[in-house]
Amino acid sequence: MLDCAIIGGGPAGLTAGLYTTRGGLKNVTLFEMGMPGGQITQSSEIENYPGFFEHDKTGMDFMDTWQKQCFHFGLKHEMKKVERVAKTGEHFTVTLEGGSTVEAMTVIVCTGSVPKRAGFKGEDEYFGKGVSTCATCDGFFYKDKPVTVLGGGDTALEEAFYLSNICSDVYVVHRREEFRAAPPTLDRVMRKSNIHLVTNSVIEEAVGDAMGLSGVNIKNNDGTITHMDNTGLFVFVGHNVRNDVLKDEKGEFICKMNDWGQVIVDLSMKTSVPGLFAAGDMRIEAPKQVVSAAGDGSIAALQVISYIQEQA
Amino acid sequence: MLDCAIIGGGPAGLTAGLYTTRGGLKNVTLFEMGMPGGQITQSSEIENYPGFFEHDKTGMDFMDTWQKQCFHFGLKHEMKKVERVAKTGEHFTVTLEGGSTVEAMTVIVCTGSVPKRAGFKGEDEYFGKGVSTCATCDGFFYKDKPVTVLGGGDTALEEAFYLSNICSDVYVVHRREEFRAAPPTLDRVMRKSNIHLVTNSVIEEAVGDAMGLSGVNIKNNDGTITHMDNTGLFVFVGHNVRNDVLKDEKGEFICKMNDWGQVIVDLSMKTSVPGLFAAGDMRIEAPKQVVSAAGDGSIAALQVISYIQEQA
Repeated sequence: MLDCAIIGGGPAGLTAGLYTTRGGLKNVTLFEMGMPGGQITQSSEIENYPGFFEHDKTGMDFMDTWQKQCFHFGLKHEMKKVERVAKTGEHFTVTLEGGSTVEAMTVIVCTGSVPKRAGFKGEDEYFGKGVSTCATCDGFFYKDKPVTVLGGGDTALEEAFYLSNICSDVYVVHRREEFRAAPPTLDRVMRKSNIHLVTNSVIEEAVGDAMGLSGVNIKNNDGTITHMDNTGLFVFVGHNVRNDVLKDEKGEFICKMNDWGQVIVDLSMKTSVPGLFAAGDMRIEAPKQVVSAAGDGSIAALQVISYIQEQA
Repeated sequence: MLDCAIIGGGPAGLTAGLYTTRGGLKNVTLFEMGMPGGQITQSSEIENYPGFFEHDKTGMDFMDTWQKQCFHFGLKHEMKKVERVAKTGEHFTVTLEGGSTVEAMTVIVCTGSVPKRAGFKGEDEYFGKGVSTCATCDGFFYKDKPVTVLGGGDTALEEAFYLSNICSDVYVVHRREEFRAAPPTLDRVMRKSNIHLVTNSVIEEAVGDAMGLSGVNIKNNDGTITHMDNTGLFVFVGHNVRNDVLKDEKGEFICKMNDWGQVIVDLSMKTSVPGLFAAGDMRIEAPKQVVSAAGDGSIAALQVISYIQEQA
């Protein structure tokens, strides 16, 4: 019987592992198929995680210390995919790929969310080298420079607005004439002189070289292709919340979720099921930042320790 | 008119400064009397802030990078004491010591809380060198070693329980025969074989040398003094929440607080007053960790940016 099963190995899961084991829990396993680290390992530079401010270091370098530190206190790592979590009586059963199961007193789920890819040529190649899905994370790297935003929903326009305070010009590329965003959001965007709406258009290709992205080819619905020199391209075409482990065999969620499939938690990262906690990008109102995900992980871990104490 | 006034320069305030300015706000001032950094600058070692794992570095070293990073994007620092914050119409008025005022569109309050000192001899001298007010932070440094806990309330006994999973023995020194803690908490503590209750006693003196704390002298109410060799002493005699800036001239709070004087916030760090946010140790359910305070700061900052966008 595990004291705690941590599902997901990004900043939230690693921090939860650090805090549970350093807090004296002997039997804690982090389940993550590959190397822990999360989405941030794909970044070429990080400057908004407090305490880490080295411009020559990548996301992979950044996570290197986390690995050493978070596994230093006895956290175990199981390189297995988790199929589902179920509460069986007082405890939890974690079912792994292949059907084997592990029992746990508590579970912290932090499987995150994945920004959707738009599917244009060069998107994967320049991801983290000019192509980004996070204005808060990467906007500043394009201070006083022009950038392109792809998308037509609320998030795309809110992020375009955010970028317009930092970048010289923001070109919003959207495949339709009309925007899905809320009217007040659209109004604000229309009033900003350095936001330019490029409608009825898609990104045909992201182009660049070994240094990263250098421009985008934009294709209008009428077939014309326009090239723009541009070193930043922000793609906001939605997120997939990775919540499959919280579905039972019938596909029903075991805890309360909102309409977007995010886990409903309180300030203590408690879900609607006692002993089950959620942390990081998969929870409601997640700001999707390394530092806030890590904060969540520490909170969930301390709650796990209290929960186990109360059962003693 | 400031875009944002940040009151308090610990991890929450510094991170809020980083995120507001990096997010494009031009006019953000952090108000902190002394050098920013917060309580953590008093620690001699840190090993639970993810990404910082250098055993030869102190809390002061740790905060050095934060200073550079958080002020790098245009955050200003005003070395003035804030007397109070008031909402006047749509905006806020921040009154400084001496009576001068500053206007701000938004305010993030992160003035923290201060663990009370017990007042025994050597307490200040060995603070951060054996004397601690945080089991989560420092318990692991005494793994498999005996430690002393001072206090008789819920927090003291919960922290003693937390320490009993890490340390060899935990001696709980309490000045009375009876404990104020809730009966279930006391029951759990009584069942732990390595927790020893030392009642009707106080800490007479913390003793040590240049290396730090080496032991404590415990004085019983009958006058006998017992010396115990012990390198860790945890003091849990309460916290003072630093919430004075949220009181109006009549001493009434301007936003909703709980019974312990902590600011009531939601997952977005919003208080009951639009445009006023709270972050870090002064908010309800704060785990009092650097990483969670920093997470709060990032959340509050992103909310400030959204709030200002909505007013545009």
